[in-house]
Order: sequence, then C-alpha cells, then structure tokens
Amino acid sequence: MNVAILGTGAVGPALGKAFSGVGHDVVIGTRDPKQTKRREQWAAVDLPLAAYEDLDAEVFINATNGRGSLSALQAVGDALHGKVVIDAANALDFSQGFPPTLFVSNTDSLAEQLQREVPEARVVKMFNTMANEVMVNPRGLNNDSTVFVAGNDRPARETATSLAADLGWTDVFDLGDLTAARGLEMYLPLWVRIFAQLGRPHFNIKLVR
Amino acid sequence: MNVAILGTGAVGPALGKAFSGVGHDVVIGTRDPKQTKRREQWAAVDLPLAAYEDLDAEVFINATNGRGSLSALQAVGDALHGKVVIDAANALDFSQGFPPTLFVSNTDSLAEQLQREVPEARVVKMFNTMANEVMVNPRGLNNDSTVFVAGNDRPARETATSLAADLGWTDVFDLGDLTAARGLEMYLPLWVRIFAQLGRPHFNIKLVR
Repeated sequence: MNVAILGTGAVGPALGKAFSGVGHDVVIGTRDPKQTKRREQWAAVDLPLAAYEDLDAEVFINATNGRGSLSALQAVGDALHGKVVIDAANALDFSQGFPPTLFVSNTDSLAEQLQREVPEARVVKMFNTMANEVMVNPRGLNNDSTVFVAGNDRPARETATSLAADLGWTDVFDLGDLTAARGLEMYLPLWVRIFAQLGRPHFNIKLVR
Repeated sequence: MNVAILGTGAVGPALGKAFSGVGHDVVIGTRDPKQTKRREQWAAVDLPLAAYEDLDAEVFINATNGRGSLSALQAVGDALHGKVVIDAANALDFSQGFPPTLFVSNTDSLAEQLQREVPEARVVKMFNTMANEVMVNPRGLNNDSTVFVAGNDRPARETATSLAADLGWTDVFDLGDLTAARGLEMYLPLWVRIFAQLGRPHFNIKLVR
C-alpha cells in the first residue's frame, strides 16, 4: 500500500521505517524537503521525502505536532480527498510548563478539527495513545496491550486496523465514530503522568474485559 | 479501620459492603438518613447510616455524584481535618446527552476543587476510573488490571493503596501529587466510549510496562 506520512519528528520516521519494513511503499512528507535534508538527524532516515503539496498515497498518516497538523493537511490539499487519514497527533500544550494541558478537549478534538477541515478525507484516530517505540513494536512490551481506532467511516477504521496488524498489533479496539477521539486525546494527561513516574515512554494500556 | 463513605448511589453501598466484608467498620453518610431509609433500594443495604454532619472516621470516601461532592464535603465539615479523603467521584456532565462532557478538566480537576475546599484534608484520587463492580472485585476480570492513586500526601496515598489491597488489588500505581487527578478524571470520556462499545461496565485498563 502507498503510505504518506506527514511529519519529520520522532513519530513520522519511526512509523515510516516500520511500514516500509513490512512491505508498504512509504514517503515522508514535510513542508520544506531541502531544509529537512539539511538536518543532522535526517541522515539516518533512509526514506523518500517529498513536499506536502507533492504527496499522493492511498493512506496518509498525520504524525505532525498537533499545533501544526491543520496547516500540514491544508498544504497536502486535494490529494486527501477520499483517502484514509490516520491521525496520530496530540493536542498537547507545554507552553505553561508541566503538566501540559490540551489546546482542544472535552467538547471537541484535534481529529474532529482535521475532519472538519477536510470533510472529503476519512479521518481515523489511532496511535496517539502511546510513544512511537510502542506503535512500531507492540511485542516489545512484556505483555499484550491495546490500540484504539475511532472514525466516522467503517472501512477506513478497518484499513487502519489492518495497518496496525501489519506492525504486530493483535488487540485493536474499535471505538466507533470520531467523537471518541475526544476520549483518546483526553487520555494524554494520564499518559504524561505515567511517563513522568516511570521515567520512560515504553508502556501502554491493555483493555482488560 | 473506621471508614465513612459519602453517597448512597451504586458506588457508596458497593464499597461499604466490600470494606465491611474485609473487617473495616463502615458507615454510610447521606444528607437525610430518614429519606434514604425510605428508598426501596436501601432495604438491601445492610450498613449503618448517618447524616453527613454526624460522621467521624479515620478514612472518608467520596462516592457522591461529582456535582454534589463539594456540598457533601462541606456538610461533613471539620471531621475531615487531618483525615484521608479518597475521592472516587467524576466530573461527568450528561446534561447535553451522549457523549457526556466534564464540568471541570484540563487545568483543574474535581479532586483539586475538593482539596482546595478542605485544605486540612488529605485528598487522594482513587477508584474513579472504573465501575463499582470492578472496584470491589478486581479478580472478577479475566486478567490483572490497574488502579491509580494521586494525592499531595504520601502517607495518605499509602493508606489508600493499603485499602485497595484489602479488596484484592495487586497493581496500585502511584501517580504522585493531586494534579495527576486531572489525568484520572480526563480518562473518563474514553471509559464512557469503551463502555458504550462493550455494552457493559465490567472492564478496566492494565498498565503494561
């Protein structure tokens, strides 16, 4: 499958390498490819790079910083129409220090904002509830854990579920429509506190039912 | 240990029976004991009942509806000074239908509001992340799961942890100070969506680390 990943931070390249490693055709999208290539950290990332406006793919993954997600999707533009857009971003605001707050929550979510911005895309919230080390290596934890999907389009949720399975996920829990992204994003303040107590991001939650 | 539980809904009596069953001296607190005793459901609850203002105990548990928690603690008054107050309540607002929102979140929490109202109490957030069936019977799930504690006073968190252990909890995760209650309360929108998908409240999360 052709997968375009928006974002050149830690999450985008990690997902890119993982999906490439299981046979998908991956391209990483960025605002300014020349500038990204000049960055020292980019040398280790052996993946094709393209400007947002030049991307085309069957599946897009938003792995940008939450603050930049809306403008990143705007830059990709019409290529998103009809496509599955997996939103792995979070609405974390660290501007007031620790603990961070969310810049959208409770009655709305970042994923819903993105869906409203590109109504023709099929947005699925997934992967935002864990660190990238866990996204790409679920078996790296000492026990089975859970990844959640939420989105208005059932086939899009199934595509996301299938992509998670490609990375080794065996427990993908379907939460239904995209308003459930509020719950997935509002889990982050708890994630941040667990992270602070453990001193490492290598953890996840298992839904025991 | 003398345990006073505020609230005569589903949670209070469930916790009361459970703590009484493991040897604690339990009293249930309510605004109007005469009125509570007239309620049909109360007949099955074989626990002592007292008015909020007559309560005294080593540990208090707030199992009231979140909207009524502040006034319940106010009614108990000075008896709370120096005592451990386990806050199991949530800030859920169902007034706009489903999904519910939180009436306090992100930069504050119900637990912090209660702590500010009674600065002399030692508030610990615990048990709000699950249904009462799970609180009192953690082994009733098909796998081990996690309960979290947060509070500004370490010995109070240890008392809460010990009380959870009395009910069979083996994984009590300490989140540190009471600002972590924001994370525990903001988990509720996710809990509600999982509940809606499963169609039953008999589930919990396990912190896999």
